[in-house]
Amino acid sequence: MSPTMSTWQELAAEKKQRQQAAIPKDWIVAVPPVDQLDVTDVPAKCGLLTPFELEITDTSDVGVLLVKLAAGQWSSIDVTRAYYKRAIVAQQVTNCLTEIFVERALARAGECDAYLKKNGKPMGALHGLPISLKDQVRLKGLETTIGYVSWIGDYATRDATLATILYEAGAVPFVRTNVPQTLMWPETFNNIFGRTLNPHNRKLTCGGSSGGEGALIGMKGSPLGVGSDIGGSIRIPSAFNGLYSLRPSFNRIPYEGSTNTMEGQDSIPSVLGPLSISLSGVKAFTKAVIDLQPWTKDPLAVRKAWDEEGYQLKEHGNGKDLCFAILWDNGYSLPTPPIRRALEIAKKALEAKGFKVIDWPGFNYGELSTTVSHIWAAGSLEDYATTTAKIGEPVIATMALDGVSSSLEWLTPIESLSAYELWQLQKKRTELRKAHLDLWESTASLTGTGRPVDAIISPVAPYAAIPHGKNADVTYTMVWNGLDCPACVFPVSKVDPYIDVKEPRDKFLSKADEFFYNLYDPDFWQNAPTCLQLVGRTLEEEAVIGMTEIVDAALSAYKSLG
Amino acid sequence: MSPTMSTWQELAAEKKQRQQAAIPKDWIVAVPPVDQLDVTDVPAKCGLLTPFELEITDTSDVGVLLVKLAAGQWSSIDVTRAYYKRAIVAQQVTNCLTEIFVERALARAGECDAYLKKNGKPMGALHGLPISLKDQVRLKGLETTIGYVSWIGDYATRDATLATILYEAGAVPFVRTNVPQTLMWPETFNNIFGRTLNPHNRKLTCGGSSGGEGALIGMKGSPLGVGSDIGGSIRIPSAFNGLYSLRPSFNRIPYEGSTNTMEGQDSIPSVLGPLSISLSGVKAFTKAVIDLQPWTKDPLAVRKAWDEEGYQLKEHGNGKDLCFAILWDNGYSLPTPPIRRALEIAKKALEAKGFKVIDWPGFNYGELSTTVSHIWAAGSLEDYATTTAKIGEPVIATMALDGVSSSLEWLTPIESLSAYELWQLQKKRTELRKAHLDLWESTASLTGTGRPVDAIISPVAPYAAIPHGKNADVTYTMVWNGLDCPACVFPVSKVDPYIDVKEPRDKFLSKADEFFYNLYDPDFWQNAPTCLQLVGRTLEEEAVIGMTEIVDAALSAYKSLG
Repeated sequence: MSPTMSTWQELAAEKKQRQQAAIPKDWIVAVPPVDQLDVTDVPAKCGLLTPFELEITDTSDVGVLLVKLAAGQWSSIDVTRAYYKRAIVAQQVTNCLTEIFVERALARAGECDAYLKKNGKPMGALHGLPISLKDQVRLKGLETTIGYVSWIGDYATRDATLATILYEAGAVPFVRTNVPQTLMWPETFNNIFGRTLNPHNRKLTCGGSSGGEGALIGMKGSPLGVGSDIGGSIRIPSAFNGLYSLRPSFNRIPYEGSTNTMEGQDSIPSVLGPLSISLSGVKAFTKAVIDLQPWTKDPLAVRKAWDEEGYQLKEHGNGKDLCFAILWDNGYSLPTPPIRRALEIAKKALEAKGFKVIDWPGFNYGELSTTVSHIWAAGSLEDYATTTAKIGEPVIATMALDGVSSSLEWLTPIESLSAYELWQLQKKRTELRKAHLDLWESTASLTGTGRPVDAIISPVAPYAAIPHGKNADVTYTMVWNGLDCPACVFPVSKVDPYIDVKEPRDKFLSKADEFFYNLYDPDFWQNAPTCLQLVGRTLEEEAVIGMTEIVDAALSAYKSLG
Repeated sequence: MSPTMSTWQELAAEKKQRQQAAIPKDWIVAVPPVDQLDVTDVPAKCGLLTPFELEITDTSDVGVLLVKLAAGQWSSIDVTRAYYKRAIVAQQVTNCLTEIFVERALARAGECDAYLKKNGKPMGALHGLPISLKDQVRLKGLETTIGYVSWIGDYATRDATLATILYEAGAVPFVRTNVPQTLMWPETFNNIFGRTLNPHNRKLTCGGSSGGEGALIGMKGSPLGVGSDIGGSIRIPSAFNGLYSLRPSFNRIPYEGSTNTMEGQDSIPSVLGPLSISLSGVKAFTKAVIDLQPWTKDPLAVRKAWDEEGYQLKEHGNGKDLCFAILWDNGYSLPTPPIRRALEIAKKALEAKGFKVIDWPGFNYGELSTTVSHIWAAGSLEDYATTTAKIGEPVIATMALDGVSSSLEWLTPIESLSAYELWQLQKKRTELRKAHLDLWESTASLTGTGRPVDAIISPVAPYAAIPHGKNADVTYTMVWNGLDCPACVFPVSKVDPYIDVKEPRDKFLSKADEFFYNLYDPDFWQNAPTCLQLVGRTLEEEAVIGMTEIVDAALSAYKSLG
C-alpha cells in the first residue's frame, strides 16, 4: 500500500463519521445506559417524537398505514418524518443503520403527496409508505458497502430493480440497514458500522444477516423492510425481533442490481423478501412487487403473476380443513423450552380452531444442511478474499464480542472445490429435494383431507435471540433454502423465565445440541420474542401468506382466551 | 480389466445384437441401396405396412390422431402397431432407434383400448397415442445407456417422472431413440448404436443430440417424440428433419428420473420437450404434461399452471397487431442461401397477413455463446472421463465419418475450472441476460404497438442439415439456452439447388462463417428441409406456441398463393 493511501481502518472510520454527520443534530437523544437491556420504550420516552409521530409509528398494521396514506389522511411527509425520527432513535440504541439520507427521503415523500393531490389517486399499492432496505438494495447516488471497507466510495449509478419497482409502487425508501461482513453470518457485525444489538435485550444478538432490519423494525423504526435470505438471513432476525417476514422462493422477488457476495453462485441463491410489523405488510409488499412484473426488468425473476386463487387456498381445500404438521425437532438440535412452548401454543391454537395438527415425519435434514453449506463453501473463501484483498481488510472469522473464535462458528472454512465437485454436490442436493418432495406427497395418507400436509410449522432456530457471538445453528432455516420452500415467520410469545425453565437432559443429538442446552439460561434470555415459521411448497408464496394469516388469527384467538 | 470381463467393444456388440433381435423377423424389409439418399418413401413402398397402417401414419396432424383415438374410431393397438412398423422401417434405413419393445408397447395400447371401452372416456389428454422417447427418459425394466457402453446392463427400477406423467395422460411410450455419446454433440453417433442418418438425404446428418427422434419422426415413424435440449438438441434435429418442436424454459417439463450427462450442472441445464409432425402435437404434449402438475413429482419443475390467457396472447394484443423481429444473422456466421430464403419467406408471409416485421437489433451473441460453452466445459471432461472410465470406452472426439478430427469440432476441450471460476462465468452470463432483456424491452420504441417485439424469428442453424461430421456451429440455438428463452421450430421450405445458388462472398464474420460458406453446395444439400425458430420470453411457452400457430398459418396461406 502506498503511503498516500488510507488504511482500511482510516477508510472505515471516515465512512462511519460521514454516517454520524448525516443524522440531524436535533435528532440526537439522550441514550439509556448500556445496562438497560430492553430499549423498545426509548422512542416513546426520549422526547424526540411528537404525540402524532408516536401515534403514526405505533400503528400495528401496515394495512392501516396504507389506507391512511392512500386516502391522504396522513401525508407521506408526516409518516416518513415520524419513522425517520424513530429510526434515528433506534440507531442510537441498537446501531442498526448504514445509509442515512433524510432530505432525499422527505423529498420523495413530498413527491408522493404532490402526486396524490394532483391526480386524486395514489401512486401505487405502496403509496407514500417508508420502506427500509438492507444494505444491498442499491439506490442511485449512494454507496452500498454491505460492510466491506473495500466498497466504500462505490456510488451506484442506478437503482436496483427492486428499488425501481418500489418507486413505481409509490414507496419511500428511507434508510438502509446493517449487515455482517460477507452477509454469510446469522448475526450483524462488520468493520465499518460495527455491531447491531437486539432492542428487546441488548445482551442478545439481533440475528443476521438482515439484522439491521430486524432491530430497526423491532424498534418500530420502520413499518416494512427488505431483507435477503440465503440460509435464514430474513427469518432469523425476524424471529429474534418478534416480526413477520417471508422468505420467498428463488427469484420470485427481483434481485437484479442489488449488491451481493458470492455472485454467480446460482444453485442456492440468496432471495430478497419483506420483514414487517404486520403480516399485512408482508402481503402488501409481495403482491405489489409481483404485480409490477419484475420479469420485465430482471432476467432471473420468475414470470408468474400474483396467484389470487393460491392466496385464497383453492388447492388447500379453500382453507376449510387444513392439516398442519409440526416439526418438533430436526434431528440435529432440540428446541430450547421457549421454542418448544411456542410449538405447543401453535398446536393448541390451531386445534382450538378445528384444524388437524400432526407430527412431521423425520428426514435427514443434517445431510441436507451439510450439502447446502458445502455448495456455498465451494468458492466462498476465494470470493471473500478477492473482495477484501483490494484494501487489505481482514475477513472476519467470528462474531464473538471479544473477537476470539469459540470454534463453534458455523462458517467454518472448507476447502474450495472444482466445478465438477460442485456439480456432484448440486446433484446430491437435487436428490435430497426429490426425497423430501416424495416424503411430503406421502403425507396424503396421514392427513385425512385427501391432500398432503398443507404446511409445516417449524422452529426458526432451536432458541430465541441468543447471546452475541453464539448463533451457530442455522439448520432450521437453511434446509428450506436448500429445498427452495417459501416460509413465513410469525410471532408467538416471549421468553418467560418462570415458564421456560431448564429441564435436565443427559442425551444430546449433536455437539451443537449439547452446547446450546448448556448455554440456555432463562434469565439471560428474558424478554426475547419467540417466533415460528410456516413452510410451504416451492413458488407457493401466496398460499404460504394465506395460511400464515389463518395461523396468526388462531394464535390471536387462543391468546385472547387467556 | 480382468480376463473374464468383456471389452467395451464386446459389450457394445452384444447390446446391438440384442437390439436387432428385438425386431420381429417379419418386419425386416428389403432396404434400398446406400446411394438412395431420400428414404422417406420406403415405408410406403416396402410392403410391410397395410394401406390402413399407411393411412394412420400418414396423418399429418396429431390433433386428428388424438380425436380418433379418444373417440375409439381408431384403436390404440392399431395406431401403435402401425407406428411401430414404420419405426422399424425407419430404423432399417436411418438407424434411429435404441430400445425396441414391441410386445410391451402393444400391451400398453391394449390397456388404453380396454380403459376406453370400460369407462367410456379416454384415459387422458394423450389417450392411446404412441410417443417415442429419446434414450434418456427411463422406463422401468429397460436399460438407458445414452450411448455409453458403461451403462449397458443398467436396468431402470422405476419410470422417469415424465414417463409417469405420459402414462397418466394415456400415452403409449413405444420406442427409444438414438443419441450421441455424452449428449453434447449436435449429431448422432455413439459406440453402441452407431450413426443415425437423415431420411431426407442420407449423406446429411439428422442433427443431434435428439437425432434419433429427428430421423424417426422425419420418417413419420412416430407422431410425437420427446427430446432434450441443452444447446439446440431438440431444435437442430427438428430443423434438419423438417419438424415442429419446442425447447421449453428450464424445468417447465419435468426432467427428474431421466438419465443425463453432466448431472448437477444446474446453471444452463438441459430441458425436455416435444418434436412432432405437427404443431398440434407440440401443444398437446406441453399442455398435457403441465396439466398433470409435474411439480408434485419433480422438485425442480416450475409450479406454473398452463396459462390459457398466455396461449390466447392476452399480453400480445390478443394476437391482433403482432410485431415480429427477424434475426438475419447473429454476427458470427451468415445464414446460407436456403436459410436466408426461409427468413425472407417468413417475412413476406407475415407481412401479407398484415403483421409488422422489423429487424432484430444486434447483440453480442458471440460472447454469450462463449460464456455458455465455458460454463458447460467447467466440469464436462471430468464427467465424461468418470463415466467412460468404468469400462475403458474412449470418449468420442469427432463426429467425422472417418473418425479423424477436422479441428472444426465445436466441442473443443477447455481446461476444467474451479467452482469460483465457474461462478464468475455464471455471473457474466446473468449480466448478459440482463443486457439482452433490456435490449428486448427497448424495442417497444420500434414496434408501433406500444409493446416490445412480440417474438424473434431466427435461424436454427446457418445451414440446413449438413454433411456428417460437419455440424460445428450451434450459436443460433445455444444463445436461447443461455438466455432461457423458449423457442418453437417450424418448417418453411426445402433446399432447392435452382433457387438457393451460391453467391460470391469475400468477407466473412468468422473462420466458421468462411468454412461453412466454402462447404455449402446446393446440389449436395438437395432435399434438406429448412426450418426457423420463433423465440419468446422465459416461461412464455404458451405464447410461443400461440404465436407459432399464427406464423404457421401465415406460411400456409402464403405458400397456397404460390
